[in-house]
Amino acid sequence: MKIQKSISASAYTSESFVGKYQKLIKDVVVPYQYSVLCDAAADTEKSHVVQNFINAAHALRGEDTADGFYGEIFQDSDAAKWIEAAAYSLANFPDKDLEKTVDSLIDIIAEAQDEDGYLDTYFTVKDREKRWTNLLEGHELYCAGHMMEAACAYYEVTGKDKLLKVMEKNAEHIYNRFIAEKHEGVPGHPEVELALMKMYRCTKNKHCLELAEHFVNSRGVNPDYFRNEYKNRGWTVWGNDGTSGEYQQSGKPVREQTEATGHAVRAGYLYTGMADIASKTGDNSLYEACKRLWENITRRRMYITGGIGSTVHGKAFSVDYDLPNDTTYCETCASVALMFFASRMLENEVKGEYGDVMERAFYNTVLAGMQLDGKRFFYVNPLEVTPGISGISPVCRHDLPERPKWYACACCPPNVARLIASLGKYSYGESDDTAYCHLFAAGEVCFRNGIRFRCETEYPYDFTATYHIQRGGKIAVRIPAWSESYTVKLNGEAISPKIITGYAYIDTSDGDELAITLDGTPKFAYGSVKIPQLSGKLALCRGPLVYCFEGVDNGGDVFALSVKGSGSITLKEYDEKLPGGTLAIEVDACRRDDTESLYSLDRPKKTECKAIAVPYYTWGNRGLNQMRVWINEV
Amino acid sequence: MKIQKSISASAYTSESFVGKYQKLIKDVVVPYQYSVLCDAAADTEKSHVVQNFINAAHALRGEDTADGFYGEIFQDSDAAKWIEAAAYSLANFPDKDLEKTVDSLIDIIAEAQDEDGYLDTYFTVKDREKRWTNLLEGHELYCAGHMMEAACAYYEVTGKDKLLKVMEKNAEHIYNRFIAEKHEGVPGHPEVELALMKMYRCTKNKHCLELAEHFVNSRGVNPDYFRNEYKNRGWTVWGNDGTSGEYQQSGKPVREQTEATGHAVRAGYLYTGMADIASKTGDNSLYEACKRLWENITRRRMYITGGIGSTVHGKAFSVDYDLPNDTTYCETCASVALMFFASRMLENEVKGEYGDVMERAFYNTVLAGMQLDGKRFFYVNPLEVTPGISGISPVCRHDLPERPKWYACACCPPNVARLIASLGKYSYGESDDTAYCHLFAAGEVCFRNGIRFRCETEYPYDFTATYHIQRGGKIAVRIPAWSESYTVKLNGEAISPKIITGYAYIDTSDGDELAITLDGTPKFAYGSVKIPQLSGKLALCRGPLVYCFEGVDNGGDVFALSVKGSGSITLKEYDEKLPGGTLAIEVDACRRDDTESLYSLDRPKKTECKAIAVPYYTWGNRGLNQMRVWINEV
Repeated sequence: MKIQKSISASAYTSESFVGKYQKLIKDVVVPYQYSVLCDAAADTEKSHVVQNFINAAHALRGEDTADGFYGEIFQDSDAAKWIEAAAYSLANFPDKDLEKTVDSLIDIIAEAQDEDGYLDTYFTVKDREKRWTNLLEGHELYCAGHMMEAACAYYEVTGKDKLLKVMEKNAEHIYNRFIAEKHEGVPGHPEVELALMKMYRCTKNKHCLELAEHFVNSRGVNPDYFRNEYKNRGWTVWGNDGTSGEYQQSGKPVREQTEATGHAVRAGYLYTGMADIASKTGDNSLYEACKRLWENITRRRMYITGGIGSTVHGKAFSVDYDLPNDTTYCETCASVALMFFASRMLENEVKGEYGDVMERAFYNTVLAGMQLDGKRFFYVNPLEVTPGISGISPVCRHDLPERPKWYACACCPPNVARLIASLGKYSYGESDDTAYCHLFAAGEVCFRNGIRFRCETEYPYDFTATYHIQRGGKIAVRIPAWSESYTVKLNGEAISPKIITGYAYIDTSDGDELAITLDGTPKFAYGSVKIPQLSGKLALCRGPLVYCFEGVDNGGDVFALSVKGSGSITLKEYDEKLPGGTLAIEVDACRRDDTESLYSLDRPKKTECKAIAVPYYTWGNRGLNQMRVWINEV
Repeated sequence: MKIQKSISASAYTSESFVGKYQKLIKDVVVPYQYSVLCDAAADTEKSHVVQNFINAAHALRGEDTADGFYGEIFQDSDAAKWIEAAAYSLANFPDKDLEKTVDSLIDIIAEAQDEDGYLDTYFTVKDREKRWTNLLEGHELYCAGHMMEAACAYYEVTGKDKLLKVMEKNAEHIYNRFIAEKHEGVPGHPEVELALMKMYRCTKNKHCLELAEHFVNSRGVNPDYFRNEYKNRGWTVWGNDGTSGEYQQSGKPVREQTEATGHAVRAGYLYTGMADIASKTGDNSLYEACKRLWENITRRRMYITGGIGSTVHGKAFSVDYDLPNDTTYCETCASVALMFFASRMLENEVKGEYGDVMERAFYNTVLAGMQLDGKRFFYVNPLEVTPGISGISPVCRHDLPERPKWYACACCPPNVARLIASLGKYSYGESDDTAYCHLFAAGEVCFRNGIRFRCETEYPYDFTATYHIQRGGKIAVRIPAWSESYTVKLNGEAISPKIITGYAYIDTSDGDELAITLDGTPKFAYGSVKIPQLSGKLALCRGPLVYCFEGVDNGGDVFALSVKGSGSITLKEYDEKLPGGTLAIEVDACRRDDTESLYSLDRPKKTECKAIAVPYYTWGNRGLNQMRVWINEV
């Protein structure tokens, strides 16, 4: 099997739907998030992250550290993720001013690096003696990983290697500690594994690959490692005593793990790193482990919106089929991580289901994580909210019915920004002789293998993608499983290309026009009866978009509605007044009267009506409002 | 308005349904629970409660306290509730051996009382200096209250006053501290208020009434009381810092409280005490407050099963209409407390809704709290369980799908026992000239006002109650709101008695036969659309019994079922093989096939079928099993 790789960040100029989002990232999100990092944004949580780096440099020089360190122990990673988002944004939209801002931030960061390569402002400012004593909660490897990702992205886009060199030195410091000096330990929060793989691809430094493999292969081999670390160190951040191996996926060696457990972002990052190593090294036992974990997630523990990690307790995976709509966790970052995992699985094997899940997560949970104006964010993505209960009741206090501006733990907003800005890398991949189209994303794409085309599509609202081939070759286009039928036309003639594991393979020549048309019929979706909360309910989908019913479109109350599963489904005209400008869907329904008392023996009157649904990613943009994805079927 | 009072414990000899339960309490529950208290029961949590009293007596004599104190800080109350249950059981079934056992336990308890009247083994054994320093968590007043209730019950049934004298001395000790010496403070866990009212009725000691009023009237007047106590005392049991006034209903003066908040058992006991004082003193502002709280509970915060306190977080009330079926708390004790509250509201005003709620709580949540064999108990009473998720998933880890034997915090089992053993007191009440029939409970009843009858009924399975009048007078029988129609016959002749606020008033003479027939038609019930989790669902009721659907009767899977709201409802024949021997109900339904994958766009096949429901109180008696009360309607 030939391995495909993601394209470079600069190889894709997006247009249309994705392009609009990338422009929002450039115009609003990147500048806004930078102002937050510099504590210049109004009415939001204090960040202090830039100042932390400045103060760390003071500490290294033995100077007064002014107002010291502020924020989460992993605060540094906010700066890293912002640099990464800014870098990818520069690939989409070159901007000298932004580049200068990034350069100056990199200068500040470089000053905060210790002589031995160590880089972490929390420990540098607060207590250098505690370095590496708390891998469970200290997040030094997590922060290092994010800064490595930032370094690679900025180097890839601009060719500037200052941060890359900083992080190569940092990687060498980590290599010395954990490999040369043989200190025991694995990351409490996986992330550095996938980042080291990026470093390896960027620098060809074999220590990076060796270190990534070391962390993955050591994980869970001594299941008591974190418990012992806790006992020996005498300090803690959050009181995690390391007894639950499940929480940080360290209870068993990774190749023996068969169920996705614990903190969903940790899990997603770990599995991404594992799949990445497997694709690079051809380690089949590792890929087999990834496949088992992938199947456990996508066949038993994933929401229809591509959300994962259903419980607030540990922001974690729960048990099979435990996918409540109202007490949901579904962290935005976890769906970003699921996209990472899917993209690395595609680098092992080109299979439609990986792309299907990637787009499910992207078009629903990831996009819903951000207000349409780019200014507010969801950390948690419920599938049902009730004003007056959601965000208030103890079991769903985390399920906010509206997006806040920023969070003290600000992982999700920059994660969404970097993902969207680099969407080209997820949309397209390549092998020596093939261009892979995983997602339908309009724009120009230049593959390293020479193939070049321009994709035109109004996806996910129109279901034809037309590839204007500039430099021909073999093109593989994913045919999503949701598309019951499809047509492929080459220069206007219908063809029947070979379909292999969900991808249509077409040979093209320079100047060809390849058009793929998928089935954009809106359809009802049903969940397994093993998911208790979906019992008796249906959802509404069109292509990759999951729809939802909001009160504002439905007389204020969606809980009184039941939708006729045998009724008609009508796609409405484009409506610019709907949030973001979208196409609503109308279905036959009936509305139940309320009871006179809390409980009643009188059968409530039902009235035939229409119910209106809008795409889930647009929800919560029109004020406090009921919302549900899964609605009663009659 | 003439106030009715509950009858004395010995005034009622029960038969039939209630009698069978009372016999179970006598034969199984009282002996089993006593063996637990003495640490003589196999395979259960250690109690140590009797030994705590013995060790406290040692401590008072300055002797070695052997193995010291063990258990919850309120462990004493388990002994108290057991004595109360045993006392009421003695009223039903005189038993010299049991009486001797109680006497000897009372001797042990009396020895544990300090010279000044103080009685609490935790503080006496562990740290006398800390007495009264932690009203928030120390539970001294809570334990005192339960022991007062036990003392009153044992005195009422046997005429023996040893424990009553102990507790009168204890009450005087409390009076001195909080009234004579003017120490600030109210109970962290209300209970002593209602107990002091019992003491007052038993002893006529006005200090008891004064003290009960003092605790109720002081509550929430200084909303910072508990916070200050926490700051000043320097020790804590569970880390409650007193900042949440809502948790223990101390955020506002009780007359200003309009919503039922916080720990549901605390709330129920407090409101019971308030209603009790209001009925005794004619304090209208207090009764008005009770009515507001009653309405808030019964119209917005109560399950159809009479369960209250919907969230595990604080075992507490949540917000209005937040009544999830699967993450339910619904502590058995909270429904017992709701029955107490209802019974005291009836002593203020004879209104059908109070009796309706009392029987809703009794026949559903309270009875479901106990295995049919009397040997296992639920603390938490969900309305839906899924093996593999319930009891395992973090959000419903407390919702066990099967009853455990005993709990470290063993409040519920003896609470159910004392309630059932004294059910006569809740079923019947009286005023100077009227006998009130609140619940339909077969047996002989002798009222202090001279009226005497024998009630024959197979309620809740047959809906005629026949009162054979031995000594006539005015009889008031509750006509439940669920009974759409009813007939009243006096000596075989239909009559149309006056109905006042849900009670039929009938004048009877010696030798009369009064027969009330209610509507026993099984019916579907509907919840308000404001309760999100009931959207699209219906329940099935017959009289006071709420039914539920268990997997064992329905091909293993109740989540695939939808019931036809317009279909037929068939009451099945009595089936002795069903748990406890009961009448199932069959309804028209359809069963949905499972989807092939987790989510599917293919409409699953539906097959017409019948669904079988059994009374909720019988659920969980046939092994691990799906269960749901609210089922999809089609």
